[in-house]
Amino acid sequence: MFDIVVVGAGPAGYSAAINARKRDKSVVVIGQHTGWLAKAEKIENYPGMPDISGEEMLSIMRDQALAMGAQVRPGVVHQVIDMGESFGLSLGADFVEAKKVILCTGAKQPKLLPGEEMFLGRGVSYCGTCDAMLYRGKHVAVVAQGHEAVSEANFLAGLCQSVTFFGKQEEALDPRVIVCDEKVEAIFGDDRARGVVAQGREIPFDGVFIFRDAMALSALMSGLSASGAFIRVDRQMRTNIPGVFAAGDCTGLPLQVAKAVGEGCIAALAAAQEIK
Amino acid sequence: MFDIVVVGAGPAGYSAAINARKRDKSVVVIGQHTGWLAKAEKIENYPGMPDISGEEMLSIMRDQALAMGAQVRPGVVHQVIDMGESFGLSLGADFVEAKKVILCTGAKQPKLLPGEEMFLGRGVSYCGTCDAMLYRGKHVAVVAQGHEAVSEANFLAGLCQSVTFFGKQEEALDPRVIVCDEKVEAIFGDDRARGVVAQGREIPFDGVFIFRDAMALSALMSGLSASGAFIRVDRQMRTNIPGVFAAGDCTGLPLQVAKAVGEGCIAALAAAQEIK
Repeated sequence: MFDIVVVGAGPAGYSAAINARKRDKSVVVIGQHTGWLAKAEKIENYPGMPDISGEEMLSIMRDQALAMGAQVRPGVVHQVIDMGESFGLSLGADFVEAKKVILCTGAKQPKLLPGEEMFLGRGVSYCGTCDAMLYRGKHVAVVAQGHEAVSEANFLAGLCQSVTFFGKQEEALDPRVIVCDEKVEAIFGDDRARGVVAQGREIPFDGVFIFRDAMALSALMSGLSASGAFIRVDRQMRTNIPGVFAAGDCTGLPLQVAKAVGEGCIAALAAAQEIK
Repeated sequence: MFDIVVVGAGPAGYSAAINARKRDKSVVVIGQHTGWLAKAEKIENYPGMPDISGEEMLSIMRDQALAMGAQVRPGVVHQVIDMGESFGLSLGADFVEAKKVILCTGAKQPKLLPGEEMFLGRGVSYCGTCDAMLYRGKHVAVVAQGHEAVSEANFLAGLCQSVTFFGKQEEALDPRVIVCDEKVEAIFGDDRARGVVAQGREIPFDGVFIFRDAMALSALMSGLSASGAFIRVDRQMRTNIPGVFAAGDCTGLPLQVAKAVGEGCIAALAAAQEIK
């Protein structure tokens, strides 16, 4: 079990990890460089790093966190579960446990598809590795909105009767995967999901896998108090759930690296203080 | 007139200046590298600048602010005066006017001497250049608690009958200056200051000059709401006085560079937004 788990590998997340290590807490950062910053050609207004690309900045911060003894792990956290004395985080087939959670999930909030929340666990899945066996020899749809979609679709192709990939054709895709460049608009079903709606048409499937780089906050952690699209925090970066902190773009405007590192630092020190 | 004046040349101040320039506002930073950071041998936990000395970090941030078109001016702001549509800042004999003020004065709060506030302007002065003529041919005391004390004492030595310097002997001191290595404990007087108290003894002077690197907040700006030693701010870094913002160590714990740059950024963007 870690002292602190940081969800999201951006400036807020790395700042939290660096400062958690400074207080001698074990810490793991889960995430990839998939936010807006990774694509930024030049950042001018982060004090101390004039004229640097976003990807360069992220690499330097990641290296600094690693050098200080933090762990950094790629992956998407699907859910944070409050287990009383600690928190459990599911990352597909993987699981991480920690005493405190710092959410640094960025400002990008995916919109859930109509039906998605209702059928989650009943025909809708976020994890190929976890649920593929349930669809062995069956027909599944893949809604591709994230980096892991291709590898997960390929994995499913080895087990399912058919895999229909709703997304752009990619070279790395297994030739058995059927590519459909239509936008999935909803998930339909009755007591469970029965297929997807695309271009107004119902297409039947036995299961629907959705892959995104970020989870909607409502799906990530239930009961989290929000103000619009942003997580509510106090000046110590505490959310309404004891033991859960938030920092960076996910707490609100301005969406700036400087604000993110400041909040990551505050959150880590506040979390560290709560750990005996 | 500047759009924004930043009081204090630390990470919060430079971050405010950099971000004000990013919004195309004219900005001047007033201060010197005299805080705790300038003396820090190594800072490990500011994301993006691993293992750097405080002075190096400050230099890089200052250069970045300058490169973006901010002005940086040494000096100590003695008072911020609310003039209705703008603010006036007295820096000894100099004067700066700006539409908005961002206080980044650090955590160090000098303790006023007993009698200091009462006799300010009546025998007590913070500015040799401004008030020396009032003490031409007279006997004055210099309470040396800041970088400018030596040069100011030398300036006074050219006009006053005698200058007694309460502080450590320094090579750069004019030989006419009398050095007294006693601690000034209070200022005494009647309708005006009549001298200083040192080691329980009253020593008569016609005037008392006090030089510090930082002003007490109560003296710097009247009416500013504080919580203990720290300036009260909301999440936009607004103080209780419209048009006046605060950022960095002066707003409270944790005293961290990351927090300071984050708050400086927020304050600058909020201030810029208030300027048409």
